[in-house]
Amino acid sequence: MTTDVVAVLGRGLVDPAAPAIWTDDLGLTRGDGCFEGCRVRRSEGTVVVDDLELHLDRMASSARGLDIAFDRAAWQTLVESSVSEWDRARPADEEASLKLVLTRGREGGQAPTGLASVSRIAAGVLAARREGVDVVTLARGVGSDSFADCPWLLGGVKTLSYALNMAAQREARRRGADDAIFVSTDGRVLEAPTAAVAWVNDTRVTTVPPGGNGILASISAERLLRVLGSCGFTTTQDQATVRDLLAAEAVILVSSVRGPVLVRSIDGQELAATERGTQVVSASQELLHFQPGQPGSPVQDW
Amino acid sequence: MTTDVVAVLGRGLVDPAAPAIWTDDLGLTRGDGCFEGCRVRRSEGTVVVDDLELHLDRMASSARGLDIAFDRAAWQTLVESSVSEWDRARPADEEASLKLVLTRGREGGQAPTGLASVSRIAAGVLAARREGVDVVTLARGVGSDSFADCPWLLGGVKTLSYALNMAAQREARRRGADDAIFVSTDGRVLEAPTAAVAWVNDTRVTTVPPGGNGILASISAERLLRVLGSCGFTTTQDQATVRDLLAAEAVILVSSVRGPVLVRSIDGQELAATERGTQVVSASQELLHFQPGQPGSPVQDW
Repeated sequence: MTTDVVAVLGRGLVDPAAPAIWTDDLGLTRGDGCFEGCRVRRSEGTVVVDDLELHLDRMASSARGLDIAFDRAAWQTLVESSVSEWDRARPADEEASLKLVLTRGREGGQAPTGLASVSRIAAGVLAARREGVDVVTLARGVGSDSFADCPWLLGGVKTLSYALNMAAQREARRRGADDAIFVSTDGRVLEAPTAAVAWVNDTRVTTVPPGGNGILASISAERLLRVLGSCGFTTTQDQATVRDLLAAEAVILVSSVRGPVLVRSIDGQELAATERGTQVVSASQELLHFQPGQPGSPVQDW
Repeated sequence: MTTDVVAVLGRGLVDPAAPAIWTDDLGLTRGDGCFEGCRVRRSEGTVVVDDLELHLDRMASSARGLDIAFDRAAWQTLVESSVSEWDRARPADEEASLKLVLTRGREGGQAPTGLASVSRIAAGVLAARREGVDVVTLARGVGSDSFADCPWLLGGVKTLSYALNMAAQREARRRGADDAIFVSTDGRVLEAPTAAVAWVNDTRVTTVPPGGNGILASISAERLLRVLGSCGFTTTQDQATVRDLLAAEAVILVSSVRGPVLVRSIDGQELAATERGTQVVSASQELLHFQPGQPGSPVQDW
């Protein structure tokens, strides 16, 4: 990934080639902060951040869960200046990834740290959109109601503490797959390390409801359901087991930058009706303006 | 906390007042790395890092768990230069905190990021050594064997992803306490967010064994047991419930920088035999060279 633009709350645009974070920042030393990943794209001559208001809503909610101040107007300005700078600096790029990072700030300090950065879309993202992904299921070590009434467990908070999520993706690659789906101790499908899980049966598309299971309220899954709903699909939230996914007509991982991608196999078992799956995913990608990449680019490095 | 010295792997000593970390460092954006906290002190004219070799052992093990390269010789050199610089810059300080941070490095980069920093001991640490702490018990949302055979859950790995641990300490303060003790879904005592739990009954001192419960193998607890063992205590590892702690003659939280501190109360219930507890903790602190602070400094801000 190449970062083209970096802006810092209270400072504005900074040189992406220079260090901007102090070594005692609690985002670094404690993973103590939250983030959002958004997709930036060009649409009829103007630059659009998909669902920016929903991402800012969720970031405000994450910040509240962490007791960190969130100045929405300042973030709006930070995003606008970053995206404008990207528009100026990378006029030939059709899309990009916008990352917002909010930390508790420096040890003993008074102000949180806020960052917005715009980076190029990795080749692996485009390949996954086009070719789909193989996934493995991994135990998440928690029950499907472990987070209920325990706000300190930070369920639903998109924290910077993603070491476990990254380790799960490495485990998936170690097993020859591209991504993982977490499963609770009581056998419920939860989410992928950086994506939500959706599945299609007939004209019904379903996602996992957030709540006591601690999973993130997925903006991209909501968006997928919205667009499929407008095409005549019935949209629901429900629990599922891995067996339910294996029996579905299509399983989809959906996230903000990669968009919806087809799951080709789970734990080495090819999913049955990939033709229907391919159609649903292709249509969703087109309706949501996610372009598949050129053949031949690697799937894994998003 | 005031950081007096910062050294970066591959660069040596840097200005602690300047930013040294890029915004795309995976330690910041993903909490993807590990750390160690050690105590530095003066002993008969020379500077000592308590159990440095054990801390480097554990960091090597954490790095292995995260698949990050760990160059022990380079870390030895980094620690030596940081500590020598502290010795030169802060000749009047009797002790300090040494933090080692290893991250996966920058997005798309080749090399991990390594930092050593030396900071002053917070007043709250000294007060806790002297006065003890009130704790609350908090659900950790995992069973006491949830981590077994699931290396991607990073049990026993001291990752930078500590947002949950920090949230638990905030929850404790919100309830009027100083610290927390995590309890598994099956009612077993685990660890504190940044300390291990030990308890004393008669001449026996016990800690929780690491393993499938995911807790850290505590260097400071091992050290406490070593020194109490040399004073005639029997030392064991065992499971405990909160009820066991409430019935113990003394409950101790122990960590590398704060050292052993007495638990005065659990969930608002004062512990019975604080006189014996005070004696054991005072003796341990003296044997392990942890000085209590002056009365009047606040307990909470470590």
